[in-house]
Amino acid sequence: MLPINEYQEQFLLYLESQNFDKEPKNLYQPIDYIVQLGGKRLRPILTLMTADIFDVDYKLALPAAMAVEVFHNFSLVHDDIMDDAPLRRGKVTVHEKWNINTGILSGDAMLILAYQYFENYQPKTFRKLAKLFSKTALEVCEGQQYDVDFETRIDVTISEYLKMIEYKTAVLVAAAMKMGAIIAQTSKENSKLIYDFGLNLGLAFQLQDDYLDALGDPNTFGKQVGGDIIENKKTYLYLKAIEFSKTDEKELLTQLFSVQLEDNEDKINAVKEIFNSTGASTATQKAIEDFTFKAFETLEKIDISKDKKAILKDFGENLMNRNV
Amino acid sequence: MLPINEYQEQFLLYLESQNFDKEPKNLYQPIDYIVQLGGKRLRPILTLMTADIFDVDYKLALPAAMAVEVFHNFSLVHDDIMDDAPLRRGKVTVHEKWNINTGILSGDAMLILAYQYFENYQPKTFRKLAKLFSKTALEVCEGQQYDVDFETRIDVTISEYLKMIEYKTAVLVAAAMKMGAIIAQTSKENSKLIYDFGLNLGLAFQLQDDYLDALGDPNTFGKQVGGDIIENKKTYLYLKAIEFSKTDEKELLTQLFSVQLEDNEDKINAVKEIFNSTGASTATQKAIEDFTFKAFETLEKIDISKDKKAILKDFGENLMNRNV
Repeated sequence: MLPINEYQEQFLLYLESQNFDKEPKNLYQPIDYIVQLGGKRLRPILTLMTADIFDVDYKLALPAAMAVEVFHNFSLVHDDIMDDAPLRRGKVTVHEKWNINTGILSGDAMLILAYQYFENYQPKTFRKLAKLFSKTALEVCEGQQYDVDFETRIDVTISEYLKMIEYKTAVLVAAAMKMGAIIAQTSKENSKLIYDFGLNLGLAFQLQDDYLDALGDPNTFGKQVGGDIIENKKTYLYLKAIEFSKTDEKELLTQLFSVQLEDNEDKINAVKEIFNSTGASTATQKAIEDFTFKAFETLEKIDISKDKKAILKDFGENLMNRNV
Repeated sequence: MLPINEYQEQFLLYLESQNFDKEPKNLYQPIDYIVQLGGKRLRPILTLMTADIFDVDYKLALPAAMAVEVFHNFSLVHDDIMDDAPLRRGKVTVHEKWNINTGILSGDAMLILAYQYFENYQPKTFRKLAKLFSKTALEVCEGQQYDVDFETRIDVTISEYLKMIEYKTAVLVAAAMKMGAIIAQTSKENSKLIYDFGLNLGLAFQLQDDYLDALGDPNTFGKQVGGDIIENKKTYLYLKAIEFSKTDEKELLTQLFSVQLEDNEDKINAVKEIFNSTGASTATQKAIEDFTFKAFETLEKIDISKDKKAILKDFGENLMNRNV
């Protein structure tokens, strides 16, 4: 096993060896732009780590890791169009830098390019990877649709919300890891368990994201703190605050989440106050811990050495203690 | 072999047996809508016919035929957004009936669904089909990008235009046929030849489409005659007219293709007049015949019975003598 940052470096070297700067330029330059834009590269790192953990040269997993990362970036490009987002990772989004049509078409090409990376594998492995990938990609689309649907619904339940983030975020983390397991040709049981580990870790990760978006430290959190509040996003924090709040707090919160303001400072502070006073913040932290714990429970059942379990546990703990 | 309309009927029965009406409804209903909207079903019919021609039960090719048709419809949904098209097959387009975001996301899901149909095949066949499909799908995206790029260029050559329609239209016709050959496990040589047959037929088909769009009979042509002229599309007809025209005609044509009018009747008539007087119409018909002839020449080399060659030739001739 390598230190985490080594997997990242190896992945970035592989990424840089890819040539996206082809003709027609207006199709491929936006792809080159978005995949080079950075990010934690969490998903491809997990693919490489998992391959290593199940005793195969992690380099064999580089194309699959790339497929996952290209798909993730595809979903960002199309989501940013749908959300009308001006910025991504502090840089201008593809549809803003070019235009919406470019965002659509370059995104489409990325989805296809992601599948092409599996062509580096033999038929049986190729089929398993592509099948898992298609199932996952479709779930990500369904998750995005639920997210859109929830914007205009006032009766979203906690379990519906969890289903939405499971599809929109967690399944890709889970699939990223399972791909490493598939390439390593480990047992079905191990593949299933590592998927479940990734799924729960992914859920914890997304809830952590919700939490940091509202209550993170502006000095360390990469995005604008309060972004979800400004956009009236019904996150786990919001749904728990509604569940726990008394009539007057509930009315205030509902009212705050029904307006779009020019200056959001007061709104953000008022909402944060309610998130804390109702116990929604504590409940969210509890949920993050619960999903992390579930992930670690699953980890125990995987047939690998204690050392390797410790590495994955370490990775999970670092992810949950992050402030970015 | 069956009569052509039998392949269409069998394909439609298979299509109707598919359930696209799943949750979330806002994702799947637009998919159900567009795939049920009709059309000639040319591509899936070719997949089924080709399987039959290479001596395998055509029913085995139904999932691949479906993949091709779902992909074709995906490309229509996204292209219609990019072209801001209100109508498709005489019905309102997906992004008009729902909205642009729905068009993007449901389109994405269709691209993934197309890949999933290949899961009906064993690993080796799956890999061959998915690989051909990815290559083709990426070329279709590239073709669409060239089409967009050409809108703002005044120096498009005939060979660039042919490359564009090859990618945007012909490769999918070619791939649809080759998929039937792959499923039938015919020789590599036969697979290659049937692809070339489809490619030349696809080129002839698209040039025919260009021709009918400008010079077809309004009583039988499905779309609005003159649509390409109204949109100032630089088709084969236009490029040939520019090539053949004298200075004054060229100036008039360039001027006509630089304006967007309220009432287009005079413009359409003037352009049609130039298409005819310059010999562009005749040159286009000649090109259609040339590509059809090339297709038939390729057909001769395929290792199948004379009867089967006659069926494919018949199919090609009907396609070129169509007025819809």
